[in-house]
Amino acid sequence: MGFKMANNLYQKIDSPFIIYDINQVAIEKFIFLHKSTLFQKPILHANSPIEVARKASTVITMLPSSPHVENVYLEGQDSLINGIDENSFLIDSSTIDQSVSKQVSKKIIDKGARAIDAPVSGGIGGAEAATLTFMVGASTPEDFNRANPYLSHMGKNIVHCGGLGTGQTAKICNNMLLAISMIGVAETMNLGVQLGMEPKLLANILNTSSGKCWSSEIYNPCPGVLPNVPSSKNYEGGFGNSLMAKDTRLAVKAANDSNSTIILGAIAQQLYNQLSKTAGYEKKDFSSIYRWLNESSSNDNKY
Amino acid sequence: MGFKMANNLYQKIDSPFIIYDINQVAIEKFIFLHKSTLFQKPILHANSPIEVARKASTVITMLPSSPHVENVYLEGQDSLINGIDENSFLIDSSTIDQSVSKQVSKKIIDKGARAIDAPVSGGIGGAEAATLTFMVGASTPEDFNRANPYLSHMGKNIVHCGGLGTGQTAKICNNMLLAISMIGVAETMNLGVQLGMEPKLLANILNTSSGKCWSSEIYNPCPGVLPNVPSSKNYEGGFGNSLMAKDTRLAVKAANDSNSTIILGAIAQQLYNQLSKTAGYEKKDFSSIYRWLNESSSNDNKY
Amino acid sequence: MGFKMANNLYQKIDSPFIIYDINQVAIEKFIFLHKSTLFQKPILHANSPIEVARKASTVITMLPSSPHVENVYLEGQDSLINGIDENSFLIDSSTIDQSVSKQVSKKIIDKGARAIDAPVSGGIGGAEAATLTFMVGASTPEDFNRANPYLSHMGKNIVHCGGLGTGQTAKICNNMLLAISMIGVAETMNLGVQLGMEPKLLANILNTSSGKCWSSEIYNPCPGVLPNVPSSKNYEGGFGNSLMAKDTRLAVKAANDSNSTIILGAIAQQLYNQLSKTAGYEKKDFSSIYRWLNESSSNDNKY
Amino acid sequence: MGFKMANNLYQKIDSPFIIYDINQVAIEKFIFLHKSTLFQKPILHANSPIEVARKASTVITMLPSSPHVENVYLEGQDSLINGIDENSFLIDSSTIDQSVSKQVSKKIIDKGARAIDAPVSGGIGGAEAATLTFMVGASTPEDFNRANPYLSHMGKNIVHCGGLGTGQTAKICNNMLLAISMIGVAETMNLGVQLGMEPKLLANILNTSSGKCWSSEIYNPCPGVLPNVPSSKNYEGGFGNSLMAKDTRLAVKAANDSNSTIILGAIAQQLYNQLSKTAGYEKKDFSSIYRWLNESSSNDNKY
Repeated sequence: MGFKMANNLYQKIDSPFIIYDINQVAIEKFIFLHKSTLFQKPILHANSPIEVARKASTVITMLPSSPHVENVYLEGQDSLINGIDENSFLIDSSTIDQSVSKQVSKKIIDKGARAIDAPVSGGIGGAEAATLTFMVGASTPEDFNRANPYLSHMGKNIVHCGGLGTGQTAKICNNMLLAISMIGVAETMNLGVQLGMEPKLLANILNTSSGKCWSSEIYNPCPGVLPNVPSSKNYEGGFGNSLMAKDTRLAVKAANDSNSTIILGAIAQQLYNQLSKTAGYEKKDFSSIYRWLNESSSNDNKY
Repeated sequence: MGFKMANNLYQKIDSPFIIYDINQVAIEKFIFLHKSTLFQKPILHANSPIEVARKASTVITMLPSSPHVENVYLEGQDSLINGIDENSFLIDSSTIDQSVSKQVSKKIIDKGARAIDAPVSGGIGGAEAATLTFMVGASTPEDFNRANPYLSHMGKNIVHCGGLGTGQTAKICNNMLLAISMIGVAETMNLGVQLGMEPKLLANILNTSSGKCWSSEIYNPCPGVLPNVPSSKNYEGGFGNSLMAKDTRLAVKAANDSNSTIILGAIAQQLYNQLSKTAGYEKKDFSSIYRWLNESSSNDNKY
Repeated sequence: MGFKMANNLYQKIDSPFIIYDINQVAIEKFIFLHKSTLFQKPILHANSPIEVARKASTVITMLPSSPHVENVYLEGQDSLINGIDENSFLIDSSTIDQSVSKQVSKKIIDKGARAIDAPVSGGIGGAEAATLTFMVGASTPEDFNRANPYLSHMGKNIVHCGGLGTGQTAKICNNMLLAISMIGVAETMNLGVQLGMEPKLLANILNTSSGKCWSSEIYNPCPGVLPNVPSSKNYEGGFGNSLMAKDTRLAVKAANDSNSTIILGAIAQQLYNQLSKTAGYEKKDFSSIYRWLNESSSNDNKY
Repeated sequence: MGFKMANNLYQKIDSPFIIYDINQVAIEKFIFLHKSTLFQKPILHANSPIEVARKASTVITMLPSSPHVENVYLEGQDSLINGIDENSFLIDSSTIDQSVSKQVSKKIIDKGARAIDAPVSGGIGGAEAATLTFMVGASTPEDFNRANPYLSHMGKNIVHCGGLGTGQTAKICNNMLLAISMIGVAETMNLGVQLGMEPKLLANILNTSSGKCWSSEIYNPCPGVLPNVPSSKNYEGGFGNSLMAKDTRLAVKAANDSNSTIILGAIAQQLYNQLSKTAGYEKKDFSSIYRWLNESSSNDNKY
């Protein structure tokens, strides 16, 4: 994700551009990809987070999980926090625990700099096409406005969700609801089909009724109902079961932090956790819950 | 429902019209309501199901549950089956167990008559405004076409779902998915609000993202997000928790009949079952699951 | 089950003995097995349920499901009900829908005969060793006492559970609780082991604490904790996932009939339903839920 | 809990005794309670955690949650870690997140001291009667043996569960299983009673069958089945819903940390979370789930 987002940003902004990745190969690959334009528009590369913070006033991070964010922002001598000053502006686009996100941003702000959370939705495709949605948690409108030009180079829908952490909250709320409705559509389509209904007809009925949802209309999990969705391509591509397990795990954490009850959400989390460990499903799109429900011993050679 | 559907039908068809209800008061009320037109267009009334079947070739039934349908159609000397002949056409608009529906229709067909299932969605409002959706299970296109003119007087969307019983299947599939997505939206809205998000903003984000569903967009369960929905009117009106408990119970029965797995569906059924027994929720709209999740002991005087 | 129960009964009672099975081979096998004693103690065999009812005053039935019981007792000319008189006493040991059981018994009693439900627990082993538990629903103490001598030849624990149908109720209540606690123990043992605890030690702690249950102490689902249980024998033998799916399905039906909420029970039913359809688990003991939870993609060659 | 545990310890050991509580009143109350023995056996009291660590080689802590433990052990100048030396031995009896417990103990050990986790079960009654069970996570047998004499003054069952954190793991494993089986028993008893069974008889059947568990046999949630349990005393006393919500929350956290699936555990957590917020249930024993399931609108004056 980060690589493709950086591609778009580099091509669209005028200011000097600094990159860093813990994996040196990623840095080299990025430079190689843009070598034709390097003469007019150089790419600097840093050797540590602190170096990025020292050289750039606006820093955008894209990291896999909460501990990575804590590490890169706060822990150790080389972390971002040790390189910032009052001109620094830190935008974290990682999807992480909303409580960690809030804490990290507050520590940055306590040091006189500014920080926001801006997780994305839209997937690899959206990152590549610069059509991501950014859900922004910013404690002031100024912070939101300051981020907007940068984010607009990488996405087309930039939403201010409220104070610090609300970008994360919006992201996991949406994805928890997506997980629940996807499982719901999968159960429903499977039930109807087992009872003898033609899948496309059933989908049409749902989509013109009160059962309609994104998962039934745009991303139907039953193979053959829609072209060009993962369910019609052996559940390949798309948003993997383990990513959905991760996002729903963050939702469960947030629910516990806020003493909120999420009964279907908690089960959705467990089902995606289990699916991401089940032989044949680890790397499949999250709509493969349909196949799992529909699984039967008569199809011994299914995988 | 049946009363309002009959109103529309009586006003729109030319053929003689016969009514029957086990409750004599309902019959009298219907006749009284239409007394101004009775001169040009008489209303006959029968004293038993069998009498209806003998006098009318097309019979439309609207009954509360499977045992009522079995009773009126099949059981005892006065039941419909004993009054039919090869010209009879029976349309059952009750929402009942799809396996019972199939059996009843088959017994009618075995006697040389024709039968279809045609449950409705759209609620009391749709029944009154003749905007119901009819989901039709008919074993032949001819049966579907034969029903169409009658159903068109009471609804605006008449869908052929497949063979006998598929009308019931489509109905309970939609309503099971509706139950799941409503609970999902309620959990999600509650989680986001507990974490500090503004409800309308959260709803907007969901509705432009992959979490979007009918329950988030058209019927949001969080008070104040939408005007004129039950959640903004103390959860009054709408589709009651006990009706949703009934429909999801039919879905669970259908899942067991067809050996289909419905994990979220099964929990949704239990939650609506419990909600329909919980003080203060028995007569509320099914979106009141939001209030239940949000319930807290500090609001002792809430009800 | 029925075959082994009949073996014990035949060997222990003095009265003439009549057998019937829809499968003629089972009858022949039974006769062949006892051919050495046939001279002193003949075995009659009937050609239909009605013939059994005409020739025997006490009839014991053991059938796989509700429709079979309805068929054998009530449907068609050859059914039991057409052969009974006021001396007839019918004992049904099938595990079936408690509402069907009640209805069937009532129809028998309405004809002047007596009937009880007496489902069993204890499995094939208990049937063979005559150590079954019989849970008896009988509308009078006299009926219970009348059944007792017969049941005592096949089991060692004969419990009067209340009126008609309560034998079925007791059976499915126990098995629903068993399903829930087995899944609970499997989740708990798996969680502890994943966190680094030694399985036997964890089991010991549970078994001396408030988590103790039959599934943790007598039938632990974690391989190696106990010898001679299915979990230590590749989950072979024991009580299959599909049988547990059936019994919990009856519990869900009973809950819906009685408007009772069973949240964990409903999920347990869905999990066993799914497990009984999952490749590698169809014929395994119901404690194999532990293996399923513990399943991981690294064990690609597990099955 | 801590107060009652300290009472027992003070009365049984010979060594000098130092107490500390953030609440000064608790300290004074403790001293007042023992004023008759103070002459022979003085009670010292500290003003901060660090002072305790400096004056006592063996320190036992009993705190409500993970953040309290982190605060008292690690955070700020006055925390325990700043007062320890190589002779220090720290025993934490709080029930907290197993990952936090491990981290805290490791930091103590890294400073040259020794630390173990030793959460308890047995409730206030067990604390008073010195019959608690201690579940000990200790990285060496020596640490376990070193703790044993102290713990034996406060409990009667001291179990070495494995390395650091396994005391916490054992505790939450047991309590998660307890939560699941309690809900299971409540659903089962309610189902049977709704279907017409006598509660004591149903409990007896379960308790002689495979459904038997601690919650059915020792702590039955159905009023009147057992004397002297909370269910027979308006669900007062016992182990509150909010405590069970807390312990199952720790189990969910541990499951996510270890990538373990806990489907029933996750729902049990949500149910206790909701119950602890529901009017009339906040302070009730965790067996009150039976009453909640059994709740009905006809009993408007139930509470």
